[in-house]
Amino acid sequence: MNEGAGVTTGTANIGVVGLAVMGANLARNLASREGNTVAVYNRSPERTRTLLAEHPEAGFVPAYSVEEFAASLARPRTAIIMVQAGAATDAMIDALVEVFEPGDIIVDGGNAYFPDTIRRERAVRETGINFVGAGISGGEEGALKGPSIMPGGSDEAWQTLGPILRSIAAVAEGEPCVTHIGHDGAGHFVKMVHNGIEYADMQLIAEAYDLIRRGTGMSPAEIAEVFAEWNRGELESYLIEITAEVLRQEDAASGGPLVDVILDQAGAKGTGAWTVQTALSLGVPASGIAEATFARSLSSHPEQRAAAAGLPGPAVAPALADPAAFIEDVRQALYASKIVAYSQGFDVIRAGAAEHGWSIDLGAVSRIWRAGCIIRAQFLNRIAEAYAAEPGLPLLLSAPYFAEALGRGQAAWRRVVAHATGAGIPAPAFASSLAYYDGLRAERLPAALVQGQRDFFGAHSYRRVDRPGSFHTLWSGDRSEVEV
Amino acid sequence: MNEGAGVTTGTANIGVVGLAVMGANLARNLASREGNTVAVYNRSPERTRTLLAEHPEAGFVPAYSVEEFAASLARPRTAIIMVQAGAATDAMIDALVEVFEPGDIIVDGGNAYFPDTIRRERAVRETGINFVGAGISGGEEGALKGPSIMPGGSDEAWQTLGPILRSIAAVAEGEPCVTHIGHDGAGHFVKMVHNGIEYADMQLIAEAYDLIRRGTGMSPAEIAEVFAEWNRGELESYLIEITAEVLRQEDAASGGPLVDVILDQAGAKGTGAWTVQTALSLGVPASGIAEATFARSLSSHPEQRAAAAGLPGPAVAPALADPAAFIEDVRQALYASKIVAYSQGFDVIRAGAAEHGWSIDLGAVSRIWRAGCIIRAQFLNRIAEAYAAEPGLPLLLSAPYFAEALGRGQAAWRRVVAHATGAGIPAPAFASSLAYYDGLRAERLPAALVQGQRDFFGAHSYRRVDRPGSFHTLWSGDRSEVEV
Repeated sequence: MNEGAGVTTGTANIGVVGLAVMGANLARNLASREGNTVAVYNRSPERTRTLLAEHPEAGFVPAYSVEEFAASLARPRTAIIMVQAGAATDAMIDALVEVFEPGDIIVDGGNAYFPDTIRRERAVRETGINFVGAGISGGEEGALKGPSIMPGGSDEAWQTLGPILRSIAAVAEGEPCVTHIGHDGAGHFVKMVHNGIEYADMQLIAEAYDLIRRGTGMSPAEIAEVFAEWNRGELESYLIEITAEVLRQEDAASGGPLVDVILDQAGAKGTGAWTVQTALSLGVPASGIAEATFARSLSSHPEQRAAAAGLPGPAVAPALADPAAFIEDVRQALYASKIVAYSQGFDVIRAGAAEHGWSIDLGAVSRIWRAGCIIRAQFLNRIAEAYAAEPGLPLLLSAPYFAEALGRGQAAWRRVVAHATGAGIPAPAFASSLAYYDGLRAERLPAALVQGQRDFFGAHSYRRVDRPGSFHTLWSGDRSEVEV
Repeated sequence: MNEGAGVTTGTANIGVVGLAVMGANLARNLASREGNTVAVYNRSPERTRTLLAEHPEAGFVPAYSVEEFAASLARPRTAIIMVQAGAATDAMIDALVEVFEPGDIIVDGGNAYFPDTIRRERAVRETGINFVGAGISGGEEGALKGPSIMPGGSDEAWQTLGPILRSIAAVAEGEPCVTHIGHDGAGHFVKMVHNGIEYADMQLIAEAYDLIRRGTGMSPAEIAEVFAEWNRGELESYLIEITAEVLRQEDAASGGPLVDVILDQAGAKGTGAWTVQTALSLGVPASGIAEATFARSLSSHPEQRAAAAGLPGPAVAPALADPAAFIEDVRQALYASKIVAYSQGFDVIRAGAAEHGWSIDLGAVSRIWRAGCIIRAQFLNRIAEAYAAEPGLPLLLSAPYFAEALGRGQAAWRRVVAHATGAGIPAPAFASSLAYYDGLRAERLPAALVQGQRDFFGAHSYRRVDRPGSFHTLWSGDRSEVEV
């Protein structure tokens, strides 16, 4: 860092670096809150000039170099970087470290992979500057009107940053949707899992739609009404709400439903895969999120789908005796599967916190997701209540409220998965969630056989149900058992 | 490397470093083949002395320092390291690089993670020494009697190494089970996927056993006979064979079946997780391997299983009208799911080869797995035939033989998954494989809805079925569509 840079300081209490849509909207959000003066900087000056011209009401303090940007900020200088994850973020951090001073705060508000955030925090900390990785969810609209914010970083940085972030966050039942998640990479870790849960939620909704459409023959517009109705009950959530909007949308070109002209190959930006990869490293079964992630990649291999197009399936789809009852079954299956997805997601956070030494308040995480972010839902109040009642809950879905809901829905859930199975309709996330549920509650699992196989071919040993120790059967010898 | 070390050279054409069971057995295997003289070295000398004392017939050339080891080898010096993956492997490579010369060959025969092998190969290559990461499968017995070997590394190293590895590999229908997989990390990559497939294979067998046991009430010994019978048909494989052995095994302490006293918490050494993590990075849906890996981690969380123990399931298991027919259904479901697991595994190899620039002969991979390794099976001949008929096959399961088998088995497969679903028996790998099959062959997937959701909340855009380009609906505006 440049020791001379400390000579001049400005009046802005917060700065935003990177003025593409997300950054510009976040800057406008900050400027709209009382007490904030916002410095703005973008590598190419055109964007800065455009933003100033279009939003004179914001009172932005423009800067056209990092030096000027640093000089425009009051101490401790606090800047939120909103540039592309990866090399662009590293370059901007390096540039700010040159002109900032010890005690200043650099916030990465992008979608960084949490190990990168841990690495960056460690490197920046060496200079005495605070580095905060903050997950920001809510898309462009959230950035402007109030996102859900998941900051990591030091307690010292949170002292300064907390009030600023609270001023711009979404508000749920009077509470701003931001909390200090934990140190270094904790914020980006939790944002990653948020996105992983989002993948599962979206896939489950997609399966529900597909099952209803193929089962009942209803049109997308008719199914939109089903989702709108569901949005008035326990499934109430932003994703259910926008599903109704998407299904209702007509395509001007064809005159038919928009969903029917959208190419059925789902894109992905990597956070679902990161969540599952992290879950695998932590030994946490996040199978619902995995199936959702894989469903997207399966859809995006047209050459493989073409090769498989002729493969045999059921000759005739089973007729539904009662379409309305089937739709209610699907609703219950969706709710039960959703509970599994969130339970698995919170399990990843719990295990990640233990692994990285973060003290994460799981109830607080569920509360800051109630507004501003993509998975916002009433449902998150139930999760908050579960952790309030038992902060050390080993498994979210076994909390009384969820256990009761699963018990109520499990018969319908089974009927729906059996229907999909018989009809040849892929429902990987529904099926996987149910298998996870049945696996968890099984008194005995055939994992015992797997242990026997592993001992046979690899002498990996096994434990016994009746006494402590590790044992090996001399499979190639007299087949007696030895303690190892 | 030590330039002076070249002065003396010995008579051994191959050396083994690390004389724990795997290393000692591999050294004995090498020594038993005509033309090989085997130098042996272990960090602690006791192991070396014991091996020499116990196996005078092998004619080992012992070394008690790396310098002595290097001096005992003829040029190009060729040494196989059989020590623990990780730091121990790195330390031994460093030590050998010090005493070896350009043109010499260091082989890592451990279970290294392939990115480590790529890194090591690059570093060792700088010295002019060849580094070969070689996957070796078959456990202790395979190491002694003939493993399946998957070497990577340079063509130059393969010139020397090929004949030596061919001399010790398992033999399948006259062919040694070793081939030069590809450069740098290709060998360890393919070994990793071998293990991932092994996870899926074992989980599928475990589910088949559980379904039969809970469905029919047969004893493990009776089910052993079912597996023994299956081993005479298209399922013939080492894993089916040893499943019969494990299920047949009586426990001396209890007088009951051994499988019933083995703790039902499956262990894992990480290769299943690596395979799935790699598949996620490559965008390949390896859902069967993922479910198998997650099934092991689920089983190993006793505190969560205890919390879930009281969760509701079906009141009564559905009675089987015809137990023998059910067992045949399970056999067909197992075969169909196994085809999916292998298809997904070969898809990971195909995508990994493209990503890393490896020229991997998928047919050759299937042929070297026919003997020596854990997943050895007649079945692999069918895979070899499929790739012989169409080397660029985009999807293994759509090859005529497999497509026919899946068509024949799909009705039984559906009955089994529906039964498990209704009975509350977890069959995550069966269910996931079937959902993958139905997803691939679906004419339209609800991925179109996912794309619509993504465009709604994140302006991610979508493609259309009727014309090229990327499009966005102005969801917050007048809802017209714009090209982006």
